Amino acid sequence: MSDNRCEAGVEKYRHRMPLQMRFNDIDMLGHLNNSVYLTFMDLAKADYFRDVNGGDVDIRKMGVVIVNINANFCAPTFFNEKIEVETATVAIGEKSLTLEQRIFSVPDRQVKCCCRTIMSGFDIKTNTSMPISAEWVNKLEMYEGRKLVKSKI
Amino acid sequence: MSDNRCEAGVEKYRHRMPLQMRFNDIDMLGHLNNSVYLTFMDLAKADYFRDVNGGDVDIRKMGVVIVNINANFCAPTFFNEKIEVETATVAIGEKSLTLEQRIFSVPDRQVKCCCRTIMSGFDIKTNTSMPISAEWVNKLEMYEGRKLVKSKI
Amino acid sequence: MSDNRCEAGVEKYRHRMPLQMRFNDIDMLGHLNNSVYLTFMDLAKADYFRDVNGGDVDIRKMGVVIVNINANFCAPTFFNEKIEVETATVAIGEKSLTLEQRIFSVPDRQVKCCCRTIMSGFDIKTNTSMPISAEWVNKLEMYEGRKLVKSKI
Amino acid sequence: MSDNRCEAGVEKYRHRMPLQMRFNDIDMLGHLNNSVYLTFMDLAKADYFRDVNGGDVDIRKMGVVIVNINANFCAPTFFNEKIEVETATVAIGEKSLTLEQRIFSVPDRQVKCCCRTIMSGFDIKTNTSMPISAEWVNKLEMYEGRKLVKSKI
Repeated sequence: MSDNRCEAGVEKYRHRMPLQMRFNDIDMLGHLNNSVYLTFMDLAKADYFRDVNGGDVDIRKMGVVIVNINANFCAPTFFNEKIEVETATVAIGEKSLTLEQRIFSVPDRQVKCCCRTIMSGFDIKTNTSMPISAEWVNKLEMYEGRKLVKSKI
Repeated sequence: MSDNRCEAGVEKYRHRMPLQMRFNDIDMLGHLNNSVYLTFMDLAKADYFRDVNGGDVDIRKMGVVIVNINANFCAPTFFNEKIEVETATVAIGEKSLTLEQRIFSVPDRQVKCCCRTIMSGFDIKTNTSMPISAEWVNKLEMYEGRKLVKSKI
Repeated sequence: MSDNRCEAGVEKYRHRMPLQMRFNDIDMLGHLNNSVYLTFMDLAKADYFRDVNGGDVDIRKMGVVIVNINANFCAPTFFNEKIEVETATVAIGEKSLTLEQRIFSVPDRQVKCCCRTIMSGFDIKTNTSMPISAEWVNKLEMYEGRKLVKSKI
Repeated sequence: MSDNRCEAGVEKYRHRMPLQMRFNDIDMLGHLNNSVYLTFMDLAKADYFRDVNGGDVDIRKMGVVIVNINANFCAPTFFNEKIEVETATVAIGEKSLTLEQRIFSVPDRQVKCCCRTIMSGFDIKTNTSMPISAEWVNKLEMYEGRKLVKSKI
């Protein structure tokens, strides 16, 4: 089963990375397990923020946490399929970032899973939400090559 | 950081199960990794359908696949916290089931993650969507003790 | 296939805990994936040291690391089998602890995997090996109810 | 802590593959979790057998199961280290294959984990051990470029 729920969204992703599937990512149905898609999205986010930052970034000190994930599972992934993930920031709010990501097979570009993730600025010392710094907003807009949509949260 | 995005929703869950955290579920931030919540939701779904069915059910033959997950992460979970998960069906459509689940700590019932999952009827032989059988609708309504809301999908 | 490579070893284990299998622990062969046995052994070790210590112990400060694991896989584990793990310390050296563990199904006690693990005392600050403290040797012997065999390492 | 337990062994590996670490492979100690090394060894084995076979091989039909793993953990792996794995068959018996594998960082070739794995021929239909086929022995010796040591099991 495949469908077009993932067709819309970001027009052009600037960040893309290949994914390495593991034998035990495949569950007894013969499909890549749903939770594995999320570990791929996490991996891509870490790499994306590193690229946006122009080099290493300590995720433990970055000051963002995931507050919501909305994922569509559009087609099953089988062992040995070659897959990649694309990542982009699509909106920014006073205290939040919104990312869109999608995992697809190559070379046919069948979208397997697309995902919208809301991350909140977070002060690890005080355990409370905090604004996204102007420095990060600037770096994200530089990387994406456009002004980001403002979200309300 | 905790918030009340998970407060609303199902009033009374009939299915509840304790969860066993593993050492490597905790990531380098010291928190239960987000993808692990989904493996817990999966585990609870399998147990829920078994209970609804009044005994064993072969998930491979059940004829449903997950098409969307919308999860709120409301508070971090730390190693050695005692956590449980609740599961309920909240809506049913011609070709879909909608479940709500939440994971919380005991005894303080702090909600860590709440999740809405849409599952589609699916014919594994023809690889196409198919209706949820009247037999399953009946069993689900029997288990939940009420008529289920009709969804449009 | 089952065999008796796991029959010998510890006569009586004092530490035992039930294990909670997850849907995605089962690989496409329909068996509990080998690497999952090791995450269960880890989980049991953390719980074992907590019990030996008579309460909470911060594994990050415990000052031991795993240096060798020797595991026999004796019989496959299937989804929904009820399994448990037993753990004991069997030898102690100047700078090492040796543990034996086994995972088996209940109620038939078919051993699925048995494992011998050598842990080394380790100073996390200097990143070098260090002796097992007399306090821990004493606690381990108290818990096991016998003098531990001395190993050469 | 690093040591030389992994220095000996295979002189020249013909199979080598890069590994992709995931964010949640790193545990709360900041190290790649021990069980993850085994999932990497599994991944490399699948790729190795594919190469030996000169193309696709259905692992589910290959007729081998892991019966023993003996792994040395020689140095911790940190997030963002670049790591690779090498795999070779080192011995063959009537009903068994013995593989050696090691995971190391590049470019410094610090060995993180080395592992000896014994696999048994296995008939999935009768659930009993079976000989390694002459065809596989031949392919393995062709790939490794030498006669394999005979083991007793």
